[in-house]
Amino acid sequence: MDRVMGMYVIDPRQHHALVQAAFLKRGFAQDEAADAARICDLTARHGIRTHNAIKALHLDEQLGSGSGGCVPGAEVERLPSRFPASEVWDAHRKFGPSVAFRAMERSIELAGAYGIGQVAVDNAFHYLWGGGYVMEAAQRGFIAYTNCTAALAEVVPHGGTYPTLGTNPHSWAFPTVEAIGYPIVVDWATSVTAMGRVQQFKREGKTLPPGSAVDAQGRETTDPSAVVALLPFGQHKGYGLALLNELYSAVTGGSLPTLRCKPDASPGEKTAPTFYFQVIHPEAIDAGRHAGGRDRTENLLAVIRDVLGHGNEAALLPGQLEAEAAARSDRVGGFIFTEAEIAEFRELARSCGLPDWTEEDLKPCD
Amino acid sequence: MDRVMGMYVIDPRQHHALVQAAFLKRGFAQDEAADAARICDLTARHGIRTHNAIKALHLDEQLGSGSGGCVPGAEVERLPSRFPASEVWDAHRKFGPSVAFRAMERSIELAGAYGIGQVAVDNAFHYLWGGGYVMEAAQRGFIAYTNCTAALAEVVPHGGTYPTLGTNPHSWAFPTVEAIGYPIVVDWATSVTAMGRVQQFKREGKTLPPGSAVDAQGRETTDPSAVVALLPFGQHKGYGLALLNELYSAVTGGSLPTLRCKPDASPGEKTAPTFYFQVIHPEAIDAGRHAGGRDRTENLLAVIRDVLGHGNEAALLPGQLEAEAAARSDRVGGFIFTEAEIAEFRELARSCGLPDWTEEDLKPCD
Repeated sequence: MDRVMGMYVIDPRQHHALVQAAFLKRGFAQDEAADAARICDLTARHGIRTHNAIKALHLDEQLGSGSGGCVPGAEVERLPSRFPASEVWDAHRKFGPSVAFRAMERSIELAGAYGIGQVAVDNAFHYLWGGGYVMEAAQRGFIAYTNCTAALAEVVPHGGTYPTLGTNPHSWAFPTVEAIGYPIVVDWATSVTAMGRVQQFKREGKTLPPGSAVDAQGRETTDPSAVVALLPFGQHKGYGLALLNELYSAVTGGSLPTLRCKPDASPGEKTAPTFYFQVIHPEAIDAGRHAGGRDRTENLLAVIRDVLGHGNEAALLPGQLEAEAAARSDRVGGFIFTEAEIAEFRELARSCGLPDWTEEDLKPCD
Repeated sequence: MDRVMGMYVIDPRQHHALVQAAFLKRGFAQDEAADAARICDLTARHGIRTHNAIKALHLDEQLGSGSGGCVPGAEVERLPSRFPASEVWDAHRKFGPSVAFRAMERSIELAGAYGIGQVAVDNAFHYLWGGGYVMEAAQRGFIAYTNCTAALAEVVPHGGTYPTLGTNPHSWAFPTVEAIGYPIVVDWATSVTAMGRVQQFKREGKTLPPGSAVDAQGRETTDPSAVVALLPFGQHKGYGLALLNELYSAVTGGSLPTLRCKPDASPGEKTAPTFYFQVIHPEAIDAGRHAGGRDRTENLLAVIRDVLGHGNEAALLPGQLEAEAAARSDRVGGFIFTEAEIAEFRELARSCGLPDWTEEDLKPCD
């Protein structure tokens, strides 16, 4: 393996302990701090640089316990329901990943009993990485889906000029581990790009790809310093996908998207995002009559090979890059971070009263 | 109202009778011919010109009962299942719309009992317009979703060169009739454009928008006469959405996408598409704690107004054009067709031994 310049490998236990300590220090309960470490371990292991522990702490600072958007130690309330395959919860702004891990677990139980199960969550707080929850469910053999309303209304409806939609992600995963070694995970925001990426382009003096963003007048722009809002991907199609999250949310209990996560909300309105989780037991949709006497796993493999065959070997499967990042993490025995990220972690360790990370901890990534 | 040149209004009863007669003549059973008329009435009423009765008959000619892809009079077999909120059917290639209407009806019943219900269908035949089934369910108050594997592998995976995916549509609808007068319907294929549109551009001597299609070498082209395959919309995102249908299908019983609807399939393989239907009872995901004391309908309206407010009045809602077309159909008292379409219908009427459409039938569209 070539040496990756400026990248360091951190022991997963050390990363876990640091994230846990940082969230305990911010007033979160033991279970919440453990769940924070769990989701940050997942993003770090799978190379999801945009949603690592530093991002999780910034989110909490800006929109979470630092400003009342998240309530450490809150209890999830399961609301009464006459529908046995469905649950609806009021999270009372409990830490998002703690709610998401539980909701996905419960959806898996419901799917085991009914073939399909769903949990909708009102009064939620940012769950960091939707892809992680569906990926874990798929690793356990289930088809899983989640969507949520993203914190801020940063996206302009197709044909409009003003941002009234969140970057509203969708995440699906399929149980393809037996077939190809990892779950296929389709997971993305419904904007062409993220606001963080616009800032990065601005710092680097680059222009944005066309169709990504608009200026203060709602006119399309490729100049990152003129950007005030984002555009949905795929024009009316991505707009429709972004709108779906707002509709799920409106049914569950979400309020006006332009007020979401804003401190100056109109009195009587609500400002918290909502979550939606769904799990399908694959046996419940398997007719069991696969071609060539194949079983479900063999059929999935045959279909995937057909899609990537015929000269399509350069195409990637969704989830493949994340699986490769996880394999690399396993190979080097830890999570890979940049020098800049390590500096933030060392600062964080100091502020939490943890021992400084020694040179030995900072193993260069070979 | 301005007069629409070259457009004619046809009495819905006459349209219904003609479609029914045409399908009976092709050997379909009474229930199938009635369902053919029902779905073609739906597309005609909502201005879905790409999926009208003429398309339905062409599909049957090319891929259906004309070539063995569809078996008139086949019986749907409900397979045993231990999952109460789920059913899985073998359609034995029965006429697609007949299967789809029943599967959506059954999904609605399951959602009524469990909060969410699903029906997966193996050995299916083209259901014409997914948007119609979810729209009807939403008009009755439900959240509905369907996907299917499209007949032919015409779409190249992102990063590949050869078409191995169907145009694989997704259709979602939300029960927004009380809030805004019509259901929101998000319904599209996962390719940038349809092959039929490429042919139209070729006839009209136009060039395609960039990123729509590839030539025989898998290189992007805007020349419609060089096109051999389509590209997914939104690059890796649309590709992921197209792949999802293949994965649902692979689990249910679909076989290799490149063999689908091909007469020269390898022995032992399967060539039929599959369907997936899902319905959610909105009460099952409603926490009942909407802001400002609003009920679910009022909250949906408030959220939709926020999305389309703030200067976004020019933006359309998905399903709005279809609702406007239906209102226009109601206003003129029938379905609106072009002169060329009317000519095909007259020819069809003659071939079915029906009386010719008189000048009185052909009311110009004012």
